[in-house]
Amino acid sequence: MKLAVIEGDGVGKEVIPAAIEVFDAFGLDVEKVPLELGYGRWERTGAAITDEDIDTLKKCDCVLFGAVTTPPDPNYKSVLLTIRKELDMYANVRPIRPLPSVKGIYDRTDFNYIIVRENTEGLYSGIEEIGEDVSTTKRVITRKGSKRIADYASKLAGSRTNKLTIVHKSNVMKSDKLFLDVCRQSATDAEVNHSDELVDSFAYNLIRNPWNYDVIVTTNLFGDILSDMSGALVGGLGLLPSANIGEKYAFFEPVHGSAPDIAGRNIANPLAAVLSLKMLLEWHGDMAEAAILEEAIDTSLNLGVCTPDLGGKSSTSEVGEFLANHIKTR
Amino acid sequence: MKLAVIEGDGVGKEVIPAAIEVFDAFGLDVEKVPLELGYGRWERTGAAITDEDIDTLKKCDCVLFGAVTTPPDPNYKSVLLTIRKELDMYANVRPIRPLPSVKGIYDRTDFNYIIVRENTEGLYSGIEEIGEDVSTTKRVITRKGSKRIADYASKLAGSRTNKLTIVHKSNVMKSDKLFLDVCRQSATDAEVNHSDELVDSFAYNLIRNPWNYDVIVTTNLFGDILSDMSGALVGGLGLLPSANIGEKYAFFEPVHGSAPDIAGRNIANPLAAVLSLKMLLEWHGDMAEAAILEEAIDTSLNLGVCTPDLGGKSSTSEVGEFLANHIKTR
Ligand SMILES: CC(C)[C@H](C(=O)O)[C@@H](O)C(=O)O
Ligand SMILES: CC(C)[C@H](C(=O)O)[C@@H](O)C(=O)O
Repeated sequence: MKLAVIEGDGVGKEVIPAAIEVFDAFGLDVEKVPLELGYGRWERTGAAITDEDIDTLKKCDCVLFGAVTTPPDPNYKSVLLTIRKELDMYANVRPIRPLPSVKGIYDRTDFNYIIVRENTEGLYSGIEEIGEDVSTTKRVITRKGSKRIADYASKLAGSRTNKLTIVHKSNVMKSDKLFLDVCRQSATDAEVNHSDELVDSFAYNLIRNPWNYDVIVTTNLFGDILSDMSGALVGGLGLLPSANIGEKYAFFEPVHGSAPDIAGRNIANPLAAVLSLKMLLEWHGDMAEAAILEEAIDTSLNLGVCTPDLGGKSSTSEVGEFLANHIKTR
Repeated sequence: MKLAVIEGDGVGKEVIPAAIEVFDAFGLDVEKVPLELGYGRWERTGAAITDEDIDTLKKCDCVLFGAVTTPPDPNYKSVLLTIRKELDMYANVRPIRPLPSVKGIYDRTDFNYIIVRENTEGLYSGIEEIGEDVSTTKRVITRKGSKRIADYASKLAGSRTNKLTIVHKSNVMKSDKLFLDVCRQSATDAEVNHSDELVDSFAYNLIRNPWNYDVIVTTNLFGDILSDMSGALVGGLGLLPSANIGEKYAFFEPVHGSAPDIAGRNIANPLAAVLSLKMLLEWHGDMAEAAILEEAIDTSLNLGVCTPDLGGKSSTSEVGEFLANHIKTR
């Protein structure tokens, strides 16, 4: 396996080294390809990401990514969006699951759902007309784009409790009728139990009754909002991992950003990065390693080895070291 | 004052009569104009709303509206969206505030914020291209549309704690750069303290720390999602009132829908409709009446006079009667 490692900016430079220390503890046969991308690189060289970088990424099997800072410069091309697009990673998979000893907004911890977000189209089309008095963005829904994300979600649902919720706003946007129809057909074909909800009342229902859901499939920007929102249920945005999956490549990243306000102090919570690593292991079929990693994380939390955001006293690197040692001495 | 009264469908036929009973208890000098609109009317006559209805509405000063059912028929024209558009009610105002004795997700009840949602453009443009394989919706942001909602929100913020949060997704949609710039300028001109947040992390922050916010201004669909989501904070979608405000007209409606699943049983919670009536009284300058109504609602809740969704045993009409009697015997 060839793994590209992109720390990026801000806390990316802290959480990724911690995750890599954990990864190395498994002693897997992996070639690591470090890549410098993002705002820092842009300041230094004038390019946040180049075609050459994309070529390098395409020669890897998967990517572990930290976070990048996006400056408000209109000429700056988003690294994350460029990579998602160039590597055609159409499924953004975001599992939401409470961790032991970490309090979200409820005492109940019996929920465990996954948001499957379409990752290539919708309001991220980049088709915009910018004017002095009117600016527009074209929301693009295609049958092909909807079908592959629907099939991905149906298959995932089939491997879990066989329950799929399709989230849309087809009462206002007819473009979502296409998305809804394709998702329904996919779920029917896969014999998956499914229902659909409008995104507005769904946001309410998800916060009210997270235990009612299993696999959720939705369009790009709705998935973006709903997954960040879900951070409140599990006790923090700093805890959410994600995977971007395509036919050929896979890309793992914490949902949180580069957090310039806390960067450079070795206090960022590395768990979202480490949980993203766990998704990488599962994707690669290293199920035993993924299970050991989960156990290591549970142990660290139960012992209170965690960063200040979770009430602990450990630094980013100390959490990484603890997990790595736990894995090695197991 | 000439008040159009539209019950609509489903629970609209229950909560609006309850709210009207409460309204009548004040004995204000008001001419009520009942109008039948919505799905029921469509089934009966083939039209959910006609140009004549719009003319009638335009002859009124304001509207009290229940809820309408929207069938999945592509030829059906949304009553709500038609009225918002025809009466050019550009500001959708949704106050989020805990009620006494009603539990949301937190014990703390010291939050009280208002979502000011742009109500005429964005993804509600209706500009769509529907195809077999590709369907698109044009998200339209105009300087004029942004300016009037920004000014509305800035003014509202000035009348409260002078704090405005602008919610957008300008890191992905350049169309939101226009919205953001116009809102910033408006707030600066009005000398209102302001900051801005990306809609995804904002959804998280709002659930995590609702007490950090006061007036929030955002585009149409973001406001739709964020306001429903906020229902979880106050203990139910059935509790959220709203106002649609334009230069000439004002339209008051509960945020909840027609709820066909519980309709016809006299158990729907009338409080969102009654709180919408309170907004109507305030809009009309009847501040003493609004204060009395608030006190009546607080009393009913403290005495447990409420519908089953809040753990009570009262029917929709009983809650209305209680409030009306409380007002009359005061
Ligand atoms: C940084 C931004 C472009 C990105 C997105 O909107 O997809 C982020 O919010 C995410 O969810 O990965
Ligand atoms: C019914 C629907 C068209 C409407 C909207 O999307 O605006 C509703 O959700 C609301 O928030 O008033």
